[in-house]
Amino acid sequence: MRNLKLSEDHFDLKKLNKYATLMTLGNGYMGIRGTHEEDYPIQKRGLFVAGIYNNSSTEEPEEIVNLPDVMGMDLEIDGEVFSSLKGKTISYDRTLHMDRGELTKDVVWEREDGLRLQFTFRRLAAKHDVHVLASKVSIESLNRDVTITVRTGIDAQQTNFGRQHLLEDHVQVHDETYMQGTYTTTRSHQTIGLFSTCTYSKSCDVHFFAENRQLLCESTASLKKNEPFHMEKLNAVYTSIDQKVDELNDIGLAKVKNLSEEGYERILQQSENTWKDFWNERRIEIHSSNPMDQQAIDFAQYHLEIMAPKHNPNLSVAAKGLTGEGYKGHVFWDAEIFVLPYHLYNDPKAAKQLLEYRYNRLPEARERAKANGHEGAQFPWESARTGKEETPAYAAINIKTGERQKVASALAEHHIVADIAYAVLHFYHVTDDEEFMTAKGLTMLEETSKFWLSRTSERDGQLHLLNVIGPDEYTEFIDNNAYTNYMAHHVVKQTLQVLDTFNKLDEEFRKAAEDFLNRLYLPKENADQLIPQDDTFLRKPAIDLSKYKKNQGSQSILLDYSRGEVNEMQILKQADVVMLLYLFPDIFSKEVVEKNFTYYEDKTIHDSSLSKAIHSILAMRCDQEELACQLFQEACLIDLGPNPHSSDEGIHAASLGSIWLAVFSFLNLSFEQEGIKLNPTLPAAWSSFKLPFHYKGRKITVEMNQNTLCIEKVGGDPIDAEIGKQHYRLIDQLEIPLHRDNELHKERT
Amino acid sequence: MRNLKLSEDHFDLKKLNKYATLMTLGNGYMGIRGTHEEDYPIQKRGLFVAGIYNNSSTEEPEEIVNLPDVMGMDLEIDGEVFSSLKGKTISYDRTLHMDRGELTKDVVWEREDGLRLQFTFRRLAAKHDVHVLASKVSIESLNRDVTITVRTGIDAQQTNFGRQHLLEDHVQVHDETYMQGTYTTTRSHQTIGLFSTCTYSKSCDVHFFAENRQLLCESTASLKKNEPFHMEKLNAVYTSIDQKVDELNDIGLAKVKNLSEEGYERILQQSENTWKDFWNERRIEIHSSNPMDQQAIDFAQYHLEIMAPKHNPNLSVAAKGLTGEGYKGHVFWDAEIFVLPYHLYNDPKAAKQLLEYRYNRLPEARERAKANGHEGAQFPWESARTGKEETPAYAAINIKTGERQKVASALAEHHIVADIAYAVLHFYHVTDDEEFMTAKGLTMLEETSKFWLSRTSERDGQLHLLNVIGPDEYTEFIDNNAYTNYMAHHVVKQTLQVLDTFNKLDEEFRKAAEDFLNRLYLPKENADQLIPQDDTFLRKPAIDLSKYKKNQGSQSILLDYSRGEVNEMQILKQADVVMLLYLFPDIFSKEVVEKNFTYYEDKTIHDSSLSKAIHSILAMRCDQEELACQLFQEACLIDLGPNPHSSDEGIHAASLGSIWLAVFSFLNLSFEQEGIKLNPTLPAAWSSFKLPFHYKGRKITVEMNQNTLCIEKVGGDPIDAEIGKQHYRLIDQLEIPLHRDNELHKERT
Repeated sequence: MRNLKLSEDHFDLKKLNKYATLMTLGNGYMGIRGTHEEDYPIQKRGLFVAGIYNNSSTEEPEEIVNLPDVMGMDLEIDGEVFSSLKGKTISYDRTLHMDRGELTKDVVWEREDGLRLQFTFRRLAAKHDVHVLASKVSIESLNRDVTITVRTGIDAQQTNFGRQHLLEDHVQVHDETYMQGTYTTTRSHQTIGLFSTCTYSKSCDVHFFAENRQLLCESTASLKKNEPFHMEKLNAVYTSIDQKVDELNDIGLAKVKNLSEEGYERILQQSENTWKDFWNERRIEIHSSNPMDQQAIDFAQYHLEIMAPKHNPNLSVAAKGLTGEGYKGHVFWDAEIFVLPYHLYNDPKAAKQLLEYRYNRLPEARERAKANGHEGAQFPWESARTGKEETPAYAAINIKTGERQKVASALAEHHIVADIAYAVLHFYHVTDDEEFMTAKGLTMLEETSKFWLSRTSERDGQLHLLNVIGPDEYTEFIDNNAYTNYMAHHVVKQTLQVLDTFNKLDEEFRKAAEDFLNRLYLPKENADQLIPQDDTFLRKPAIDLSKYKKNQGSQSILLDYSRGEVNEMQILKQADVVMLLYLFPDIFSKEVVEKNFTYYEDKTIHDSSLSKAIHSILAMRCDQEELACQLFQEACLIDLGPNPHSSDEGIHAASLGSIWLAVFSFLNLSFEQEGIKLNPTLPAAWSSFKLPFHYKGRKITVEMNQNTLCIEKVGGDPIDAEIGKQHYRLIDQLEIPLHRDNELHKERT
Repeated sequence: MRNLKLSEDHFDLKKLNKYATLMTLGNGYMGIRGTHEEDYPIQKRGLFVAGIYNNSSTEEPEEIVNLPDVMGMDLEIDGEVFSSLKGKTISYDRTLHMDRGELTKDVVWEREDGLRLQFTFRRLAAKHDVHVLASKVSIESLNRDVTITVRTGIDAQQTNFGRQHLLEDHVQVHDETYMQGTYTTTRSHQTIGLFSTCTYSKSCDVHFFAENRQLLCESTASLKKNEPFHMEKLNAVYTSIDQKVDELNDIGLAKVKNLSEEGYERILQQSENTWKDFWNERRIEIHSSNPMDQQAIDFAQYHLEIMAPKHNPNLSVAAKGLTGEGYKGHVFWDAEIFVLPYHLYNDPKAAKQLLEYRYNRLPEARERAKANGHEGAQFPWESARTGKEETPAYAAINIKTGERQKVASALAEHHIVADIAYAVLHFYHVTDDEEFMTAKGLTMLEETSKFWLSRTSERDGQLHLLNVIGPDEYTEFIDNNAYTNYMAHHVVKQTLQVLDTFNKLDEEFRKAAEDFLNRLYLPKENADQLIPQDDTFLRKPAIDLSKYKKNQGSQSILLDYSRGEVNEMQILKQADVVMLLYLFPDIFSKEVVEKNFTYYEDKTIHDSSLSKAIHSILAMRCDQEELACQLFQEACLIDLGPNPHSSDEGIHAASLGSIWLAVFSFLNLSFEQEGIKLNPTLPAAWSSFKLPFHYKGRKITVEMNQNTLCIEKVGGDPIDAEIGKQHYRLIDQLEIPLHRDNELHKERT
């Protein structure tokens, strides 16, 4: 499959952890960071299984557990440790093959004394069988006979930045072949079983030993010059989430025995087939003068896929997926607003499961609402295993005062409650899934609406939402945040309609909801056509932000100003009003949209990775195509750009979701009652693009180049399609000639 | 001072942790491993404060806590990380200066692109002020202007092989200069405060940040070619053992401010002066054809000094001192039998404090005796903070079965109780310290004796000590272990006498003790003149051990035989009978001693580091001088030898103690009522030696070469001295001409 690669062409000590993140392998069940087999300073290994959380003390929130490592290998050549830091690297290529979900490294390495070896390292996290990790090492000495020793096993010395979450339960080598390490989290009492075995292309002198939380297998072989040696390491991972604890051991052992019979190549073949199906079905194709565009969207799709826990409806997507310890593996609004739409339009079942994760945590959300004096359900700002609020009470330390800064989000970033309801509505509108709505969706909508009804304060007859934080976390504890108020209004309004449609609307709720809708204050544009982000924002002083915009993503503003000071200026981490305009394109006139986009873009540092791509969408809608392209490409660089450390602690899941959102938004797609409205845009740099999506049981593929727009439908009933003000009936395929670039777009009003 | 150095002349990745152990700096209060400033794979940093223990769960024993690191430094040269693994090392010298307690590293390093830099790293743990750690880095670019960045601070990501023991309490940067990190152990609730500051030879761009349990200071400076740059890092360490928790912060800050005014060189000067006093007072000097001999005894003295917690009578010496995590920082019989004599003959107060550590834990020892159905006091086999038994219930995993092997020592290695009493008696005989005896020693003697009285089993009218483990841990749960029975007999007998002397002997105890002494079975030599190690040992089969003796120290026997199988053969880890003969030179005839030494030496693998030097002493006593020298030199190699990993987890404290014991034993010293008996031996390789020791308030220095024996006394009354059967009165100095090598020794019968 063309391209679908991410390569590193030289070893770079400073980018170890960046590439470890980018080159993560995974399958939604688990993620394994793309660290090297061999050890390097500050290299941060990581194996994460979705849903395995623990806290090391009552004072700390639960975090996703960095599990024992099975990928690390010490290689010794005639007693000397192999390391790319030493000797001379003759050739080097490390490539993430997104087409088949395999990470490879090919190195020709020359030792100080002239001994030259060729190494090939390969590994995968199986897509067809989510419990399987496999790796294969090939070694060939190019100019001398050598003795090689490989030391690898199950290493439970891993920690979350020094916090240890696991007790060693049981460590054993079965039949002098199969290694087993079973561990229990210290407080959440989850069990994790790791099972590993090594196989060899020629017989080795093998011995096993256990020490200091490591179970190791040391294999030694003598190799003739030019005699290739292959070693495979096959691993199975099971946990108490997916197995009964007393069966886990047998299941894991049976699996790893089975794997050693199958061998790496067969496992790879099956996994690769599953990946091929995925790409054939889902891949967005772009012909752009900037080859990065295709890579960025491939990369986004790859990571959105490996972070999606499709095997279990009781899990969701963390802000860093399963690629690192950042944000402790917690689930934010990123899941519903930035990641869920991708799945919704590609694999609606996966989107439904993300909603079910929330549904299953309604009891805790109800408890939380009650504890805070509200009604209905208040979902936590940060969610993990239990559905309880997991936002750390204190986050970064103010190192000048030694005070830990309170994290305000849990106290006031209540838009998460509306975001979840928005996603339920979004899901329903795209899928018509009445079963889900009846069983779960309606309850979620009613409960979250009740939260909003009870969340208001009355002033002069109007209802206000006071003391909140919008998506812009540089402005805390303000009143009537535009994003929050409009979102709350939207979800309550839609909930009323949907409950009515399902005949589930009770009179008391209807009256309360209608009162809320009538009286909730919705900030309108002022004399300057500006929509105030909140009651006080536009009265705050503004400063020149160009210095900070240059370092966007680094929160460098906080080196010059305290959080309190930032709070009192027109400084945005990400723009709430732009987010509002993005989600609700039809509330305001184009003129107001343009005015506000320009105004707020100027005040936005983009210190949030959720910001750029959304602004790109707005720029496109405002016909600022050049700015749109620039913002889009900058969004693509959040993970793929040159900054050596921005992704050290994990991928930016929401950013990847929003890259897809941006591309998808170029379709200018909206839905009528039983039809779609398309007005695709072809950015100047793109000569063509092809984008598939699902809509109410149909798979629709839009393909466009400078001459033709082609729409294909597979499955489902025919559907009305309004394309650039022309009306069509999409039965299976439509081919519409175009007269000039972006003609359709230009016609849009 | 001549020599007193331990150097590493090239960077060796495989010996990182060996040298980190050997090059530990310390002052009894704390030990800091000799790891490099820069990070390397598998490099194990370590900062240990005596007495700071914690367990991470109830199932685990307490272990000495690996504290946050202050020595690590990331150095970047024009953005590229410095590492000895990269580029070209033009020159390299790392040296532990034992004369002044300083570790230095001088490197000239050439980057791939030809940029050449000279680095000097220096550090110390102050001897004159035990709370102080200091380091200094000097950097000079030899051929180009460069920008350098140094990142260092307080790094609380350290763990004990993955186990985290500390909660971060408070992290702060005071006055934008002084870093503070305060931590509490999770279960033992001890507080540790670390205070650090950096000073520079030219102004730097400095900024501080805290993330992931690290508080870091990043300093950047532009350097001209050939412009030297110096940076000092000054650190203070306080804990709740030595300070009130609410004062710790102020004390630490005041100290670190003070240190930054003093500066590295002045701190070094004061520390060096204290070290000089130490060496002037204590150094043993050897002129040997093997230069290793002097280095080995210097090295032993250095480490015996830095592991001794002389600042606090509530601490003792762990099996690895303060150099590593091995044996969890626990205190064994090593402290009393192998390490204490060194202090007793050099610094009796330090020896007394080691006994006080035990005295302070009598209540727990009494409880333990009671819980086990015994009387008196039963000291634990492994002791740490509380005095409770800290031997891990289970140790190494049998990886074939997954069963953790029970550690039998805590159940039966009861000789520790006699060993402690032996040390009390030893202390008294060498110091005449009646005050200590009255206040503490007598109680310890009586209580430990009571334990033995109650520990016996009666059979045919005789008393037996059944089901014990002697020092030889390859023979478990046997009856009437020679070492144990004789030791128990000795201490009870001596206790009777001493109690009597102090008029503290009560009648009931006297009767019971006399009965014990009369009826305790003491294994005598059999027809072959062999003293049976226990009731069954001599009936067990013997095998050829030469294969295992070649790999001594590695416990390689356990790769071929199970512990159970080893238990049923004449295989010794260390020889109990040899140990018995060492401690009691006068019980058996020389013929019996020779017979038994030869027999048991043959059966001993020396897998224990406590074994070699003791056997060397016995070989010398048996006139097997060549064997003695060989064994002595092999003992010196336990830490200093070529094995790259044997000291990874810490120094062998008992081995170092026994190196001194061996040298000291060459004096053939024994004590009469009010006199000493000397019969010094000059090993063939030695042309002279000088050895100082303390005896009852006198400092006596014995100096010997092939022609003269010179004995000098400072302080205390004159004393009778029997030297080679001649009687002298030592007033201040004796000079005795010798006729031929070792004449005195040869006359001994």
